[in-house]
Amino acid sequence: MIQPGCLALLSDFGLSDPYVGIMKGVIAQINPHLTVIDLTHQIPPQNVAFARFVLMTAYPYFPSGTVYVAVVDPGVGSHRRAIAIATGTNPAQPSGILVGPDNGLFSGVLSQNPVIAAVELTRPEYWRTPEPSSTFHGRDIFAPVGAHLASGVALETLGAAIAPDTLVNLSPPAVQIEKLDNGTTAITGVIQATDHFGNLITNISAAEVSETEWVVLIGNLEIPGHQTYSNASVGELLALVGSHGWVEIAVNRGNAQAKLRLNEGDGVRVVGRMKGERKKGREIQSPESKNQD
Amino acid sequence: MIQPGCLALLSDFGLSDPYVGIMKGVIAQINPHLTVIDLTHQIPPQNVAFARFVLMTAYPYFPSGTVYVAVVDPGVGSHRRAIAIATGTNPAQPSGILVGPDNGLFSGVLSQNPVIAAVELTRPEYWRTPEPSSTFHGRDIFAPVGAHLASGVALETLGAAIAPDTLVNLSPPAVQIEKLDNGTTAITGVIQATDHFGNLITNISAAEVSETEWVVLIGNLEIPGHQTYSNASVGELLALVGSHGWVEIAVNRGNAQAKLRLNEGDGVRVVGRMKGERKKGREIQSPESKNQD
Amino acid sequence: MIQPGCLALLSDFGLSDPYVGIMKGVIAQINPHLTVIDLTHQIPPQNVAFARFVLMTAYPYFPSGTVYVAVVDPGVGSHRRAIAIATGTNPAQPSGILVGPDNGLFSGVLSQNPVIAAVELTRPEYWRTPEPSSTFHGRDIFAPVGAHLASGVALETLGAAIAPDTLVNLSPPAVQIEKLDNGTTAITGVIQATDHFGNLITNISAAEVSETEWVVLIGNLEIPGHQTYSNASVGELLALVGSHGWVEIAVNRGNAQAKLRLNEGDGVRVVGRMKGERKKGREIQSPESKNQD
Repeated sequence: MIQPGCLALLSDFGLSDPYVGIMKGVIAQINPHLTVIDLTHQIPPQNVAFARFVLMTAYPYFPSGTVYVAVVDPGVGSHRRAIAIATGTNPAQPSGILVGPDNGLFSGVLSQNPVIAAVELTRPEYWRTPEPSSTFHGRDIFAPVGAHLASGVALETLGAAIAPDTLVNLSPPAVQIEKLDNGTTAITGVIQATDHFGNLITNISAAEVSETEWVVLIGNLEIPGHQTYSNASVGELLALVGSHGWVEIAVNRGNAQAKLRLNEGDGVRVVGRMKGERKKGREIQSPESKNQD
Repeated sequence: MIQPGCLALLSDFGLSDPYVGIMKGVIAQINPHLTVIDLTHQIPPQNVAFARFVLMTAYPYFPSGTVYVAVVDPGVGSHRRAIAIATGTNPAQPSGILVGPDNGLFSGVLSQNPVIAAVELTRPEYWRTPEPSSTFHGRDIFAPVGAHLASGVALETLGAAIAPDTLVNLSPPAVQIEKLDNGTTAITGVIQATDHFGNLITNISAAEVSETEWVVLIGNLEIPGHQTYSNASVGELLALVGSHGWVEIAVNRGNAQAKLRLNEGDGVRVVGRMKGERKKGREIQSPESKNQD
Repeated sequence: MIQPGCLALLSDFGLSDPYVGIMKGVIAQINPHLTVIDLTHQIPPQNVAFARFVLMTAYPYFPSGTVYVAVVDPGVGSHRRAIAIATGTNPAQPSGILVGPDNGLFSGVLSQNPVIAAVELTRPEYWRTPEPSSTFHGRDIFAPVGAHLASGVALETLGAAIAPDTLVNLSPPAVQIEKLDNGTTAITGVIQATDHFGNLITNISAAEVSETEWVVLIGNLEIPGHQTYSNASVGELLALVGSHGWVEIAVNRGNAQAKLRLNEGDGVRVVGRMKGERKKGREIQSPESKNQD
């Protein structure tokens, strides 16, 4: 018998209703000895991009072999696929198994971890019922499949293999790094997610920012890089490296998304600040209309 | 020794204060090996009707033998009884054991599951202290009794047997179904609960709605039945079958309770829509005053 | 091998972000068999005084030997010490082990429980990484150290011993009790914490209030002692003994902190009400300016 494993849950169900509790009840019906951990259930409703970001960010901190059941599923009841994916480099011992809808939720984890195998969940004998509801696949398909996987059921038995390159991908393209004539470096990336506070999280990682003094450019708007929120005045835009390791754009005690009206996929650049430049953020020219409040 | 069991918790304590954590500490003092699952702790304060609904709805999804400790207890410190009830058909193996105040919390579960035995909790040796506080029976009586039950203590040892027909009952009367002259069916029921969003949940189940096109009638107000919230315009009333399986009345992105000012027990009817009727909701006559904003 | 223990978590991280889930992932990487209990993660941000109060209040309800990992840490990244403290009277079997920043968080527990031993966490081999982030010691130091302690690692191996009298102390001085000429008793204490509702919790315990009829005096303001919130009119100040066992000052359906603008450390007195005094709260003279709305 395989040792009872670890099962991490993520959803946008919130904690006011019993939906999360019901998923845990279904899991306990299959195996009450699993270690079940809530990643968060307060993903903003249907915000697949933020859920993708959270999964990617949290993945390294869980035990090898953890099963992740993630349910942010605007397409439930439509023809989107239900999937499970084993990741890692050792087929005999995956680093993780991802269970949920095929809507790009897992594409952040997959940008950092190779796929061992992927299946479409087509075997109802591992579901709670062969006739799942059209609105709550978390209860009827994903939680029971996750519980079976964490109890040692093999991925291959859960459905037909699917080609990894057919999985929905929400990951942004790789960042572009270029040396400028003035000797500084420019990194071009995009907004990859927006969190509850309206912080705009880019796909530019701290490791890629080689300059010690830097700014973020969005169109003609220049946002100064700082160590922490309180380095900016209240209400002022700033950029910083979050504890997740990515460059993000924030407003000290405010909402950067509401101020800048940027969305996932919108472009940003990080450039080194040349000596002699003044430190405070400023607009080089008049900003584009979307940058106005 | 009996295998450590599953213990489901429900309350209106919220998660900001340590009350739920303290109940779990008390449970772990008795048996740290139980599987403890939060159903929800965000029942609207003292909303026994919604808690009753949540318990009834969640009950089928938990392992057989689960102990449910439910603490929505406006009468704590008064003379309401503290009780435990074993349910199911096999006295040697209850499908569940319910622990909490005798205020109707469990009457939804009991409307669908027969009582095996019920006791009043009168044996303080199974409490945290023989002198419980007057405000926190969750900590002092219900959590420890639940932990003992989930650890194998027999129901009968916890107190004196009580007759099931003396338990407080909040369940609405059964729905009435009648064939109308025009060949359609009319189902008469009531509002049984109101959730956090102000959705009004009736006691009419999806299985009882035989017509494919139907409307809800409340007095003279006609509310169209739809598949999902977004079938109605923003701010508009609609009826639908929730994922819990009951007909509910909602406002797309709004609050039906605030709009209609209906309460638990108020009457509703579901009737088939005749061919040729227009699909949008409308008022047949001027609504009663309570239906006006 | 020592039996897997119980680990209680407290923080101000909230549940919207995956920070708490990540701490639990790190704990499960070390030992997935621990019993992990959330005390609360909704301490108001950086409110060390309320966290101190919650830990002190919850401590008696957890199993002997529980490890408490508490992360309310405004000084993270500064020179504040990271510490672990064993408490109780039996060095071979501590009643609890406290893990977190040395900022007074634990001084409530320590006011009621003797220190067996304390160490500064200086041994990175028990951390998640020898190069912890400057912003998330919960993930990188406190959670892994807590998991090791709950798995049986000895306190002494985690770092250098520190003298208990060097620990940061946030506890208020002991209350003063005096017999008044009229035969009643006066108890002088302070506000020790403010909760989410703005209730002002004093350091005067129910056990110290010997009078059956009493009032709280703050400067010239007299606040009547009652059994429960609803004994006062809506919006009116009252004092009562909370379920935590301390005298607190509240406003029925309102916010006493916002009304009185008192802070931790501000003085209060509980005095017996003499026979013949009228029961309702009133101002004896004009209140001090800080008592005005």
